Amino acid sequence: MGELLIYGSVALDSLRTPFGERERVLGGSGLYASLAAALFVKSSLFSAIGEDFPKEHLDLLKEQGVSLDFLVQVAGERTFFWRGYYEYDMNVAHTEETQLNVLAHPPPLGALPERWAPYGLLLANMDPEHQLAVLRRCQPKFVAADTMNLWIETKRGALLELLARCHLFFCNEGEARALTEEVNLLRAARQIQKMGPPSVVIKKGEHGALLLSEDRVFLLPAYPLETAQDPTGAGDSFAGAACGYLCYVKSLDDDALRRALLLGTVAASFTVSDFSVTGLLSLTQRELLARYLELRELTSVPELTL
Amino acid sequence: MGELLIYGSVALDSLRTPFGERERVLGGSGLYASLAAALFVKSSLFSAIGEDFPKEHLDLLKEQGVSLDFLVQVAGERTFFWRGYYEYDMNVAHTEETQLNVLAHPPPLGALPERWAPYGLLLANMDPEHQLAVLRRCQPKFVAADTMNLWIETKRGALLELLARCHLFFCNEGEARALTEEVNLLRAARQIQKMGPPSVVIKKGEHGALLLSEDRVFLLPAYPLETAQDPTGAGDSFAGAACGYLCYVKSLDDDALRRALLLGTVAASFTVSDFSVTGLLSLTQRELLARYLELRELTSVPELTL
Repeated sequence: MGELLIYGSVALDSLRTPFGERERVLGGSGLYASLAAALFVKSSLFSAIGEDFPKEHLDLLKEQGVSLDFLVQVAGERTFFWRGYYEYDMNVAHTEETQLNVLAHPPPLGALPERWAPYGLLLANMDPEHQLAVLRRCQPKFVAADTMNLWIETKRGALLELLARCHLFFCNEGEARALTEEVNLLRAARQIQKMGPPSVVIKKGEHGALLLSEDRVFLLPAYPLETAQDPTGAGDSFAGAACGYLCYVKSLDDDALRRALLLGTVAASFTVSDFSVTGLLSLTQRELLARYLELRELTSVPELTL
Repeated sequence: MGELLIYGSVALDSLRTPFGERERVLGGSGLYASLAAALFVKSSLFSAIGEDFPKEHLDLLKEQGVSLDFLVQVAGERTFFWRGYYEYDMNVAHTEETQLNVLAHPPPLGALPERWAPYGLLLANMDPEHQLAVLRRCQPKFVAADTMNLWIETKRGALLELLARCHLFFCNEGEARALTEEVNLLRAARQIQKMGPPSVVIKKGEHGALLLSEDRVFLLPAYPLETAQDPTGAGDSFAGAACGYLCYVKSLDDDALRRALLLGTVAASFTVSDFSVTGLLSLTQRELLARYLELRELTSVPELTL
């Protein structure tokens, strides 16, 4: 059994960025998160795919240490498909086409074993009603979740119910503002914290992230890449690596959270350095650690006396 | 004689933000920078004001330790005036009216003593031809400069000449991109460095700043204020405090630059916490240091072994 169960989308993405284009490549929130988490723990991906999902992709995921025991291939269905593009401001994804396909259905809960509690559960971006259904089925010690603007607008009730049961919640700047109607990010984080999760991470893309945990704040930068080729999956890799590390150390104390988020931003920097999941595939713990130490040095503030 | 000479605008500002409005209050790049620098060194403000500049403002500046020996009040002229507003995204200033008035003329170089070399010279945002004229008149050991998009578009030649003679150059994200036609900020910083200044700071407002110095990068956050009332002068306070500290320690080594920029971001956080220069007036080194240490803790990354 995996130490971290990840529920999220598995997608085939057709996308273009200023640096190139790719057709029907691996994508999806759950998939990026699982690959990143697998750097630290056994990560099990819970999701559904269609008949059209290429077998070589499955082999690749297994090679990378992602458990596919709960990945359900549904006959007569097609895999979730997304087509979009990014302009030079790669913080903004422009969607041209979304086909929910197999993900239009509720999660195949029957594929999960009865009376099984993974240590951690990461609910990557999905319909919050489906996220809640997965959460109710498991009894994890640690619950993290991500969301998107669509659900804040259309499924606020379910999202609030989910928030009340999370330990760690990830959102980006726009989502934090939409959820709280608060422009200031620190105030937004405090409001989200009141909705349930003791730890709130607001992701700011190339500008890094803000963590509010209990009453402590941590400001972390993004790794300063000179060339980002494809931002797809950056946030999911961030959450996946962070939760993978937290389940590996089985701690949510402040230092563990800081290390987890910095590892998350480092994993995300590898993700965006190439298209689709390519940047994550050859990644080792040694490379992650080297970039962690580099980023630690880039933000190190000397002591001061006046 | 002051250890840091600051050339920049002295203005009367009429402005409104979501938190209130003020008529003909103290402003200007040189004025904000001088007040912030005076926290560390004797700062001398070199600029011109008109007959309409209130005497109580002059008294206030002197009380704050800003030397006005080179501040020229010109009979028959009016002080530089700016009217503008900010919406909830306080990173963007909307200008409604600009009256150059006395600042339409070249700087009154005759007011500066002959054969005088201050240790440092901060050329706050002004016409780069005027900045160059001031630089040629002094022979400082250390030259820092700031600019704005207008000059990048209209006076590129003079600005490049200035850049070739700077040790430290400040610009914001938009200016860095306009100057280099490079979207990626680290690459933009490297290009600006090739234009002359060994140290380049790209300011990102609430997202902090990036320093490239020789081949070392420093990423610093902004102090996470829950309420910013008026962003006017944030960048000038940042540059002023940073240069004031550098002249105080008479060093440009990497640790000195990191400390200087963090003190700059702390000074800017006090500036934006109230309207006009109010947030800087009661500020003490003790308060600066306390917030420096707080910000140092907010960004501290624990060691990691995997």
